[in-house]
Amino acid sequence: MNRAQKLLDSLRSSVCKDIDTVMIWNYESSSTANTFYLSGFRGSCSILIIRDDCNYIITDSRYFEQAEQESDFVLIKHTEGKLIKTVADFLDKLSAKVIGFEAERLDCKTYNELNEKLNVRFVPIDGMLYSMRSIKTEEEIEKIHAASRIAEKAFLETLNFIKEGVSEIEICAELEYRIKKLGAQVGFETLVGSGASTSKPHVKPAEKKLRNGELILFDFGARVDGYCCDITRMVFLGKPSKEIIECYNLVNESLQKATNEGKAGVIAKHIDQVARQVILQSKYAQYCFKYGLGHGIGLEVHESPRMGPLFDEPLPSGAVITVEPGIYIPGRFGIRIENDVIVRDSCFEKITALSEDLISL
Amino acid sequence: MNRAQKLLDSLRSSVCKDIDTVMIWNYESSSTANTFYLSGFRGSCSILIIRDDCNYIITDSRYFEQAEQESDFVLIKHTEGKLIKTVADFLDKLSAKVIGFEAERLDCKTYNELNEKLNVRFVPIDGMLYSMRSIKTEEEIEKIHAASRIAEKAFLETLNFIKEGVSEIEICAELEYRIKKLGAQVGFETLVGSGASTSKPHVKPAEKKLRNGELILFDFGARVDGYCCDITRMVFLGKPSKEIIECYNLVNESLQKATNEGKAGVIAKHIDQVARQVILQSKYAQYCFKYGLGHGIGLEVHESPRMGPLFDEPLPSGAVITVEPGIYIPGRFGIRIENDVIVRDSCFEKITALSEDLISL
Repeated sequence: MNRAQKLLDSLRSSVCKDIDTVMIWNYESSSTANTFYLSGFRGSCSILIIRDDCNYIITDSRYFEQAEQESDFVLIKHTEGKLIKTVADFLDKLSAKVIGFEAERLDCKTYNELNEKLNVRFVPIDGMLYSMRSIKTEEEIEKIHAASRIAEKAFLETLNFIKEGVSEIEICAELEYRIKKLGAQVGFETLVGSGASTSKPHVKPAEKKLRNGELILFDFGARVDGYCCDITRMVFLGKPSKEIIECYNLVNESLQKATNEGKAGVIAKHIDQVARQVILQSKYAQYCFKYGLGHGIGLEVHESPRMGPLFDEPLPSGAVITVEPGIYIPGRFGIRIENDVIVRDSCFEKITALSEDLISL
Repeated sequence: MNRAQKLLDSLRSSVCKDIDTVMIWNYESSSTANTFYLSGFRGSCSILIIRDDCNYIITDSRYFEQAEQESDFVLIKHTEGKLIKTVADFLDKLSAKVIGFEAERLDCKTYNELNEKLNVRFVPIDGMLYSMRSIKTEEEIEKIHAASRIAEKAFLETLNFIKEGVSEIEICAELEYRIKKLGAQVGFETLVGSGASTSKPHVKPAEKKLRNGELILFDFGARVDGYCCDITRMVFLGKPSKEIIECYNLVNESLQKATNEGKAGVIAKHIDQVARQVILQSKYAQYCFKYGLGHGIGLEVHESPRMGPLFDEPLPSGAVITVEPGIYIPGRFGIRIENDVIVRDSCFEKITALSEDLISL
């Protein structure tokens, strides 16, 4: 059974038995992950209409050829007037009555306009899609593996360019260039920070030049056939101080303990707690990471399941998640180590193959 | 007067006089353009709360340092529980009653949850923000100019790498690498297509290798301090056929006529019509571009004003827009030439400085 039909069946059995149509709206600023997952289409504008008898894709003239090549959904051409009218007219023609839609992605304006034009009931379906996507097939896992191998190779090659006087932006350009030359896409906006700016967990690369005696943070990923990995490693330029080594070892211990504790069925927040306790029991307690320990990765860099203090669900077998504890001392430095793991029945199986040792250059 | 206060004033005078608060919600998958425009903050998660007496920015621990560095909005720290609760509690504490919000960007789920928690009235304000952003200051125009100079230099350097056997992906990597090495960011997802795939207006680079006797399309841009340019140029590998030259000249004529016709006050769809007629009156009429002739650029690659058959508004002085006619023959080839221009009182002033001649290598 294809994913679209599986979605329809699952929604009927656990969300609303009356759903006759699923609508997935993909417009320029939104993520295309659900669209790609269900239909294979990669363009930036489409509306999927999923029904028992047939699946449709509505798109504009920029994408007619591409939609037919990438997807087996039946192409409905939007050729004139407003897209929303084309969609409403088509739903009307199909006599759709109860429409499943992505409440977390559809904007209020589009929703209100559709709601005014159509006499239908809309039912949110986000949870079911996230839940389906959170459990990866071995084929999907293989793509994340492939992305990791490329990201890791590109990172190791980039180490050769790290020296005093090179800017964060230049190093970032080198890393992304190598990811692309190795045949992948860049997985997400690469983070490179150095010196005091490493204390910002989401630091963006700047003109600032690398200096001896500084930490450099790399948070990066590659994307292969839609699927991305997400890795963080630290590099020290010179000989690290005792304090840096102490913090680094704490973060690494936190990472290892959490990884050893993880397997399918364990409650997500428990793993978060295991990692957090290592740092909270040290003298760096106040600098312990404030965000959740990890998140699912796949078609998006942040997806289900989440692994943080608020998440009471057991981790499902087949999920692929990050483990990324950190210590951040504002104005001084920050340290994060991040691996990707597969949630297996008996363990967390590591995807990231890079050593977790601090790299000194 | 800062932009946030100007927005509040404009909304009161032309949208709803009772608005006491503007809320700009910026979450991971949404565009951060409005947030950056109003506050200077560049992170991926924030809620701006704009009031007469004070502007606030709510964000999480990843961004506390960054928010204080980038924005003069007062930082409200989201430290625990759900973000939406932090926001609702804060709005409640401020006694907000009538809240302007981005209906085109806020998702239905967040909207519904806020609406349930708060006893307030929500008023859509998208149009006003787009309208403000569509008219650039000279300082903003200078950034688009800077982005163009870098994109053009990177493109000319990349021509040296174009030869038979190199893949579209590799050429794309070379171009983006050069944009970054020159100190800019990549403006948007770079499009590189060759041969028959050029007939897809939004072609993505693939493993396909360049071959002699093929057209190559480059649709690319750089971004400087948030502002991007958007350029399309065609390269022919070898000696182009008469048909290619004929089509190219038609597209170029279309571009030139539209550019010569343009100035502030002219109705957008009129310029579109001028460009379209050149192609519609030729034997390639059926292959004429189906999309709008152009769109505003700035913090986003597609913004106001739009220049297509549906747009009846006069173009405002100070807008920066693309002009991008094309001919697309499915399964064979496509040709587009795209420049960026400033809408001035007396003319379209070109930003793109690259020659519009077909490049043969």
